[in-house]
Amino acid sequence: MSTAFDLVIRNADVATASDRFQCDIGIRDGKIEALGKQLPAGAEEIDASGLLVLPGGVDAHCHLDQPMPDGMRMADDFFSGTRSAACGGTTTVIPFAAQAKGGSLNAAVEDYHARAAGKAVIDYAFHLIVADPTPQVLQEELPNLIRQGYTSFKIYMTYDDLKLNDREILEVLSVAREHKALVMIHAENSDCIGWLTDRLSQAGQTAPKYHALSRPMAVEREATHRAITFSELVDVPILIVHVSGREAIEQIRWAHGRGLRIYAETCPQYLFLTEHDLGGEGYHGAKCVCSPPPRDHENQKAVWDGLTNGVFSIFSSDHAPFRYDDAQGKKLGGKEQPFQYIPNGIPGLETRLPLLFSGGVMAGRLDVHQFVALTSTNPAKMYGLYPRKGSIMIGADADIVLWDTKCKVVINNALLHHEVDYTPYEGTTVQGWPVLTLSRGKVVSKDQSFVGTAGSGQFLPCGTPSI
Amino acid sequence: MSTAFDLVIRNADVATASDRFQCDIGIRDGKIEALGKQLPAGAEEIDASGLLVLPGGVDAHCHLDQPMPDGMRMADDFFSGTRSAACGGTTTVIPFAAQAKGGSLNAAVEDYHARAAGKAVIDYAFHLIVADPTPQVLQEELPNLIRQGYTSFKIYMTYDDLKLNDREILEVLSVAREHKALVMIHAENSDCIGWLTDRLSQAGQTAPKYHALSRPMAVEREATHRAITFSELVDVPILIVHVSGREAIEQIRWAHGRGLRIYAETCPQYLFLTEHDLGGEGYHGAKCVCSPPPRDHENQKAVWDGLTNGVFSIFSSDHAPFRYDDAQGKKLGGKEQPFQYIPNGIPGLETRLPLLFSGGVMAGRLDVHQFVALTSTNPAKMYGLYPRKGSIMIGADADIVLWDTKCKVVINNALLHHEVDYTPYEGTTVQGWPVLTLSRGKVVSKDQSFVGTAGSGQFLPCGTPSI
Amino acid sequence: MSTAFDLVIRNADVATASDRFQCDIGIRDGKIEALGKQLPAGAEEIDASGLLVLPGGVDAHCHLDQPMPDGMRMADDFFSGTRSAACGGTTTVIPFAAQAKGGSLNAAVEDYHARAAGKAVIDYAFHLIVADPTPQVLQEELPNLIRQGYTSFKIYMTYDDLKLNDREILEVLSVAREHKALVMIHAENSDCIGWLTDRLSQAGQTAPKYHALSRPMAVEREATHRAITFSELVDVPILIVHVSGREAIEQIRWAHGRGLRIYAETCPQYLFLTEHDLGGEGYHGAKCVCSPPPRDHENQKAVWDGLTNGVFSIFSSDHAPFRYDDAQGKKLGGKEQPFQYIPNGIPGLETRLPLLFSGGVMAGRLDVHQFVALTSTNPAKMYGLYPRKGSIMIGADADIVLWDTKCKVVINNALLHHEVDYTPYEGTTVQGWPVLTLSRGKVVSKDQSFVGTAGSGQFLPCGTPSI
Amino acid sequence: MSTAFDLVIRNADVATASDRFQCDIGIRDGKIEALGKQLPAGAEEIDASGLLVLPGGVDAHCHLDQPMPDGMRMADDFFSGTRSAACGGTTTVIPFAAQAKGGSLNAAVEDYHARAAGKAVIDYAFHLIVADPTPQVLQEELPNLIRQGYTSFKIYMTYDDLKLNDREILEVLSVAREHKALVMIHAENSDCIGWLTDRLSQAGQTAPKYHALSRPMAVEREATHRAITFSELVDVPILIVHVSGREAIEQIRWAHGRGLRIYAETCPQYLFLTEHDLGGEGYHGAKCVCSPPPRDHENQKAVWDGLTNGVFSIFSSDHAPFRYDDAQGKKLGGKEQPFQYIPNGIPGLETRLPLLFSGGVMAGRLDVHQFVALTSTNPAKMYGLYPRKGSIMIGADADIVLWDTKCKVVINNALLHHEVDYTPYEGTTVQGWPVLTLSRGKVVSKDQSFVGTAGSGQFLPCGTPSI
Repeated sequence: MSTAFDLVIRNADVATASDRFQCDIGIRDGKIEALGKQLPAGAEEIDASGLLVLPGGVDAHCHLDQPMPDGMRMADDFFSGTRSAACGGTTTVIPFAAQAKGGSLNAAVEDYHARAAGKAVIDYAFHLIVADPTPQVLQEELPNLIRQGYTSFKIYMTYDDLKLNDREILEVLSVAREHKALVMIHAENSDCIGWLTDRLSQAGQTAPKYHALSRPMAVEREATHRAITFSELVDVPILIVHVSGREAIEQIRWAHGRGLRIYAETCPQYLFLTEHDLGGEGYHGAKCVCSPPPRDHENQKAVWDGLTNGVFSIFSSDHAPFRYDDAQGKKLGGKEQPFQYIPNGIPGLETRLPLLFSGGVMAGRLDVHQFVALTSTNPAKMYGLYPRKGSIMIGADADIVLWDTKCKVVINNALLHHEVDYTPYEGTTVQGWPVLTLSRGKVVSKDQSFVGTAGSGQFLPCGTPSI
Repeated sequence: MSTAFDLVIRNADVATASDRFQCDIGIRDGKIEALGKQLPAGAEEIDASGLLVLPGGVDAHCHLDQPMPDGMRMADDFFSGTRSAACGGTTTVIPFAAQAKGGSLNAAVEDYHARAAGKAVIDYAFHLIVADPTPQVLQEELPNLIRQGYTSFKIYMTYDDLKLNDREILEVLSVAREHKALVMIHAENSDCIGWLTDRLSQAGQTAPKYHALSRPMAVEREATHRAITFSELVDVPILIVHVSGREAIEQIRWAHGRGLRIYAETCPQYLFLTEHDLGGEGYHGAKCVCSPPPRDHENQKAVWDGLTNGVFSIFSSDHAPFRYDDAQGKKLGGKEQPFQYIPNGIPGLETRLPLLFSGGVMAGRLDVHQFVALTSTNPAKMYGLYPRKGSIMIGADADIVLWDTKCKVVINNALLHHEVDYTPYEGTTVQGWPVLTLSRGKVVSKDQSFVGTAGSGQFLPCGTPSI
Repeated sequence: MSTAFDLVIRNADVATASDRFQCDIGIRDGKIEALGKQLPAGAEEIDASGLLVLPGGVDAHCHLDQPMPDGMRMADDFFSGTRSAACGGTTTVIPFAAQAKGGSLNAAVEDYHARAAGKAVIDYAFHLIVADPTPQVLQEELPNLIRQGYTSFKIYMTYDDLKLNDREILEVLSVAREHKALVMIHAENSDCIGWLTDRLSQAGQTAPKYHALSRPMAVEREATHRAITFSELVDVPILIVHVSGREAIEQIRWAHGRGLRIYAETCPQYLFLTEHDLGGEGYHGAKCVCSPPPRDHENQKAVWDGLTNGVFSIFSSDHAPFRYDDAQGKKLGGKEQPFQYIPNGIPGLETRLPLLFSGGVMAGRLDVHQFVALTSTNPAKMYGLYPRKGSIMIGADADIVLWDTKCKVVINNALLHHEVDYTPYEGTTVQGWPVLTLSRGKVVSKDQSFVGTAGSGQFLPCGTPSI
Repeated sequence: MSTAFDLVIRNADVATASDRFQCDIGIRDGKIEALGKQLPAGAEEIDASGLLVLPGGVDAHCHLDQPMPDGMRMADDFFSGTRSAACGGTTTVIPFAAQAKGGSLNAAVEDYHARAAGKAVIDYAFHLIVADPTPQVLQEELPNLIRQGYTSFKIYMTYDDLKLNDREILEVLSVAREHKALVMIHAENSDCIGWLTDRLSQAGQTAPKYHALSRPMAVEREATHRAITFSELVDVPILIVHVSGREAIEQIRWAHGRGLRIYAETCPQYLFLTEHDLGGEGYHGAKCVCSPPPRDHENQKAVWDGLTNGVFSIFSSDHAPFRYDDAQGKKLGGKEQPFQYIPNGIPGLETRLPLLFSGGVMAGRLDVHQFVALTSTNPAKMYGLYPRKGSIMIGADADIVLWDTKCKVVINNALLHHEVDYTPYEGTTVQGWPVLTLSRGKVVSKDQSFVGTAGSGQFLPCGTPSI
């Protein structure tokens, strides 16, 4: 404490996942070294008076520059994606190194590192996607990768090029149990979706809005129940990602009542969009095509309730960036597609935190501690990035965001820093905005402008998930 | 920061309700002024190396020197009670100022202040007990008392001298809603208990073990459902106290699924005792007579699950101290009583934290953050004592406890500092013990010895419950 | 079989609660003596070709000439009430001999016999209403009356002049258990209703439509849960009467899942009316004021589902006849009353069966066997009138109804035979009508005209409920 | 009625699914022509005094002479199987014409007729087993067969040679919906069973008792939930066969609460056996290997509750006859097999009715009407055999069984008429036995002796399922 700080944030009104206090924050070498009243001077100082000071967001579910089949291309690479994240108050992203069917996980990881290198402006870790759990993958690649800091993997119960069958899921969960990794599950019943899609197609129902009818709540509920059963049989925790509504939530709550360790994530699209957003005239609904699809207002209420009373541990963006007016995007091949061929996914890295802050904290549904827990502390812990990330405390990285809770913003795409040509939340007014973002003590975004540097983000090997 | 600290705790391994970090803690004027690496010297210093440093416990449900009917007397007054609490790692207690039927709440508060004055060795606040909600109480006394810092009140659905009828409960909840107070509810169906008790008595079943049969789970479940309904109708949060098992938990979980704000508390007796503890030979089971009664191992599992996955917000002792071999205690009038006349309640202030720490944290059922939340941060927030109490953070009172997680203790009553002549946990081995307790920066207990001062505890007016 | 029949019904298409068959029906001395192909001639013959032949309805919940407080008067006595029932296909009614607070059950029974004598045109039994379960009532009157054929009694959890407290309910259930009687429970929480009513009144919300807001679903759900708990504790079956919607049904279904013997009844008003029927302009909504109140379409669906899949055993009218434009009826004292003073109840004896037949059987929600079971066989069994009543089989009373399933009728009050000056179902079109009703082999109604005789109905002592 | 009856049963105490009455029964040309008091004389007469007269049982789930893979052979053909059924009070069986993967349904039906011809001693219909739903099968064979009287088909969610994937199940359900057939579903998750089996095998756990561990309740619960989802999506009723315990029942009850038309069957093995019966010393447990496996006493209670309160519509034997000491039976290839290679199934045609009658009716859990409904009327209706089969009423086949309710029998295999060399119920005492069985008016079994004729049974084309 004798030497000066690199940076002191003065008069901070700090909120963590449990606490709130007023103090100065002393930062040195990118880390938080002191919290206290009237700290000594820093080489630089920032006055946070009147602002709320929160840990930087951890977006634990986003897709960046992920190799795509069939002429599709993600609009955001590690530079534009992390730039957008930083401007939205997020300081860590965890995108996916995705194995291809027939491919190697190691190769996917290697390739993904190459894509990130020199581009990321904030720190990042990798989840794996296990699409082909061969014996080689299960017995060698996965255990080795877990040891090397890739301690979470996502599996799919739908999508032909990704989905695992029930037996494969059980095998992957067994590896997770043995090596203390965490499995994230996309829970929708593939065959039901295929059958419904074919019936809709045969009836000539091809507009984007039929996407929602091809994946009704029951399809997600069923897969959720099934995934819970697998978790119960293998005796290993799982995380159900992007839960969209009441019936899936009821399954998770039921599992909790049985003492099962089922964790759950939800996303902004299930709070701020409905199936009606898929049903605009013409093709514009394609902008909101993601899976599971947005539901209705009653389901939004159920998701909010689940955030309020603890069904959900994590709130992520599921950012999956495809341009709308683009032959590699929503208009694949240069034309309007039947719903089942529309690239799935919506952008959301930059709007994730402002939407939840406004609709949650400012609207009184969540307290600020729940906000921090859902968006930063819990994902950091669950994916083994804590205590380096996820809080404002002694020894942690100085990933800090200053929020102006009085600032009202009408979201429009020109404001955002991704490379997608639209936002599903165009025109939505939010109150509360991250006006300054620090990544390891360096300002990377200020007043809605990006001021960071490509390549300054570091790869974060993940420790054991803490669940 | 230029001036010296009164006290510095060095090398602290601090855990809060969400975070864990290593640092020194600088204390001045009884408050935490700085957290950091290598803080300047303090007038006094304590080396916490190898110890876990937690916020002092807040025991939000305990009975001390409460006026009793019929020749009964509580064994602990504010001195012995708070002494025992301090030695068990608790730095704040919230006992009850109890209105008598026909009496005034104001008078109860005044009397209770007199009982506390000069005796308490740690800080304290008061809940009210509303036993006679006359118009005067509802329209004047309660609103005034809320404004003066008595922001929580307990009501009873059972016990002839305390219970309210349904209409009265609705009226009390309405006051709580209007004036932003929190109502705690003892949920057991009085008439069912009376009917069962009479049937047991008529059958000559009078031993202590029949206490459990006179208050089966269904009786608690029913009252819990009813209380939830009142909360729903009045649209106000409630807290169900001392929840004992599965069926009541299921009701609460069901309420959560409907988005209702039902909070819940449980106690050590529902984790560490069973109805078999009521059924020892002869009269010894009287030592474990409390209401609701302990259940069975399956219900213990359900309560643990509820602690693990968030059904419960608060973990309290429900300390209600009656001596066993005492004509004002369990042997009321100097003899063994039929079960329904045994004074209800068991001691627990000092053992609350070690039991939960050992059975929860050390056994892997809870992480240390859940422990802190349940025993300190959440009660401090819910009852309006936060941010002064409930965490280790800048500006908070220096109520700090050092835990030796390697220390194994076999609980026996000689070790404890209450005035009760037994503990229900005699012989139980726990791992983890609070070896030093600071109240506002002063050591009040060290190595199982009390070193504080009667009267050093302050009364804490409560702010608005934060729920 | 050698002697001739008094009456033969030819070419009957008979449906019972389980079976359907074509045959002739031979009747002698008011009883069914033979079923067969080409029976010998009868003194009289009726050709049933093209008609459906069902057992006469048993309306197990209706109020006739019941002594009323405060200047109210029921519009139907035993003559007009049973006349109306007969014209609607009902051949047995079970109204209530109601004890007054402070009064004797024996006296109520005696009085009620006097009211029925010489008036009833179809057979009748009595339920009791226990409003004052004194030791005398519990230990002497009730056991004696059960032995004499009054084997079912209704108790109320609401209405100041009728309601029992929880302890009294437990006592009454104990008597039922010991003497094998069946208790019917009106399940609404009285205090909640009182509290809501007062708040509505204070807000000047006095129109009939506020009746529904004063008794929301939660109030019925709570009392249902409580009644189930009592049944569980006493270990005796109960019957929840006039269940109105989803939340109460969920409680009952939950009880079934625990193996509890909870039986349930619903009524036409919960299938064909909604709260909107209380909300017409001015005072007309008073015509539909009954308790519990009609709910909404979603609740109607839940009730229909419960009829379809077995939650409900009994379908009754809860006929409680008050004239609308009458100083002893809905306009009590000659004026429009605030909702809480409107006499509770609606007429329904005559429309009960056509409404359920049309909306249930003709609409495909129920098969004809379920219709017979719900409206005739089950109530006959549950209340100890079987095998004399409730089916078309050898030895049973020839209470037989011929239904024209092609007949469409627009219900209007001029068509009906009660003394009430309105029907809540005015204008409703039904398909299927009882075109001929036989009571013990005598035609009492034909082609919507009453052709029976006052006093021809007999009192039926009830046997042990068969549940 | 002028001509004499072929047979008159005098003084019958008849019970149907809803009614009970005393009468004579007049039979002509194998049909019931009259029910009445003092019927004219018959060419033959049987005095039923003191006996209970019930409709003959319909066993809607049994396997006879079904082509087997891998050297296995069913011990009962249509002669021995139906002989055994008749002696147990069953007068109609519905075994399965099973398609082989790659084979034709038509061929299976043709083959199965050949196996039945000249052998069956009571009437029979066929369910189909759809194991390979090719377009040809779905579009041509199935619709044609439905029209020809094969209106129900079973599908499997497990067993490698039979199981359908989710998409195939949806396709089969669609055909059922369009052509008004009923699909029966064997609900167990195949992959989970495979995974558990492999783990048990790897651990050297091969004894028969591990069969139960390889198919725990959760595996059945999951598949039940999934099947319900398919029914919901396709909007068609389904029947879940051989439900074994609480968790599957809870799923079905939950579906009922949502208004879904999910029907359920259970079998004697889930009421009278437990997993302990798989765990005798050595290999004897193989005698009780069937799927799902028997559970425990708590699950038996849940199944009984489900029979009592209407979760189940049908009670069948699932007779699948393999000899124990036989190289084509339980000791396949002449040796004791690891559990997963033991032929699945147990005998039960003859004991089905006495077990349920004794444990259900005589023990007070079911009334006699529920017994008749579950074992005769409901299966006759559900599978389109009503009104020809399933009741005692005018016009029905004279399939009638006389029960001696005082007769106590200790079940032993020597008493039974199947060709299996054991019964799982050896030594079980039952009260109530079918002492005389009539098939279309002819005595086929009397006093535990078979007196019928091979080939007298007729094939019954099924009509539209009535559900």
